[in-house]
Amino acid sequence: MIDEALDALKQGKVILLYDFDNREKETDFAILSSAVTPETIRMFRKDGGGLICTAISGAAAQAFGLPFASDALRFAGDIVEKEGDVPYDRRNHSSFSLWVNHRNTYTGVTDRDRALTVTSIAEYVKNFENGITGKFADDFRTPGHMALLRAADDLLDQRRGQTELSVALAQMAGVTPAVTICEMMADNGLALDKEGAKAYAKEHGLVFIEGQEVLDEWERRRAAA
Amino acid sequence: MIDEALDALKQGKVILLYDFDNREKETDFAILSSAVTPETIRMFRKDGGGLICTAISGAAAQAFGLPFASDALRFAGDIVEKEGDVPYDRRNHSSFSLWVNHRNTYTGVTDRDRALTVTSIAEYVKNFENGITGKFADDFRTPGHMALLRAADDLLDQRRGQTELSVALAQMAGVTPAVTICEMMADNGLALDKEGAKAYAKEHGLVFIEGQEVLDEWERRRAAA
Repeated sequence: MIDEALDALKQGKVILLYDFDNREKETDFAILSSAVTPETIRMFRKDGGGLICTAISGAAAQAFGLPFASDALRFAGDIVEKEGDVPYDRRNHSSFSLWVNHRNTYTGVTDRDRALTVTSIAEYVKNFENGITGKFADDFRTPGHMALLRAADDLLDQRRGQTELSVALAQMAGVTPAVTICEMMADNGLALDKEGAKAYAKEHGLVFIEGQEVLDEWERRRAAA
Repeated sequence: MIDEALDALKQGKVILLYDFDNREKETDFAILSSAVTPETIRMFRKDGGGLICTAISGAAAQAFGLPFASDALRFAGDIVEKEGDVPYDRRNHSSFSLWVNHRNTYTGVTDRDRALTVTSIAEYVKNFENGITGKFADDFRTPGHMALLRAADDLLDQRRGQTELSVALAQMAGVTPAVTICEMMADNGLALDKEGAKAYAKEHGLVFIEGQEVLDEWERRRAAA
């Protein structure tokens, strides 16, 4: 299934990415940020319902001056999360960086505005991968309506969140490490369970993949390197 | 219509709040934060589709140590919005404060988790109004999945955003100034237009009110004071 997931991601298709039974136990929509359209945002907010976020590599975030929110907000004192605070991952902090809007958006929240912000972020990350570091502040401002997630530098060797899983998938697929994700919710107040997510994938002809399969491929490639 | 809006808000019902033809031109769902349930969050994400945020009074935000994000992130340099950056309101910055989760949430993003965060914020604001300032960091951490909006200190005399409109409505209704809002989106990539919002209100038996009516009542009361 890993090959189908990598192919689908590379082709700009939405995939469903479940993390781990012992972690968030959530399925996220995931798509290359460069392939996001207003229709993608609409699908994510209507059929997903979580927060729509864009995950980028730690190296790109560093180059763009985008800190982890937990570092950026350190001044705020006790309210800032510290080690042990995140219930599904006691060893790490969350991957939230800043919230941004593209400067050419209006409110920043419409499907068109969010798609513009996301595809422009992908452009910056693509240029960064090609050795050109744009000045992020030229095109984006904070606060905004699109959450940036900053992947751990060593990806799955360091942290096993949806952020690292999606950026690792992009890296293994050989495409720009900027992936837009959104958690899938159920009607009972909780996250959609694994069986529900699998049923959605089947109904919509989308690939469903689990974090363990991504991790296995990650480790297989590392052992082979 | 203003009396119906104040009554509905006071009763914990959802109302539809349009701002101004010369501002965002957006309609937000609005409900007292103390009345929010997981079903409210579900309705907001499915039928609204924007960001679900909780607006609180400037005084409460100040007491809880919750700055404007644009101040909190000043260190980040040119990416931080400055005067003139927000296209629908060139004289002010956005009202985003920090993003928080209640410490008893799991991921923080499910309908149940977001409802817990929101109702607990309302409890803090209610206690603050009664002279008891809780230590916000005891029950919340940042970053999180619920955006706090901080109203301008002088409300509609100072800024006329959805944040100030909703907190002013709560104040005029004589209830705790903590209101949860969410922008209504359309299927064409843009915000739902005014006629679409009115049609939704009619279909669902909800009150629709415009910012101008709120402002008129605000100024009428001030003149009478």
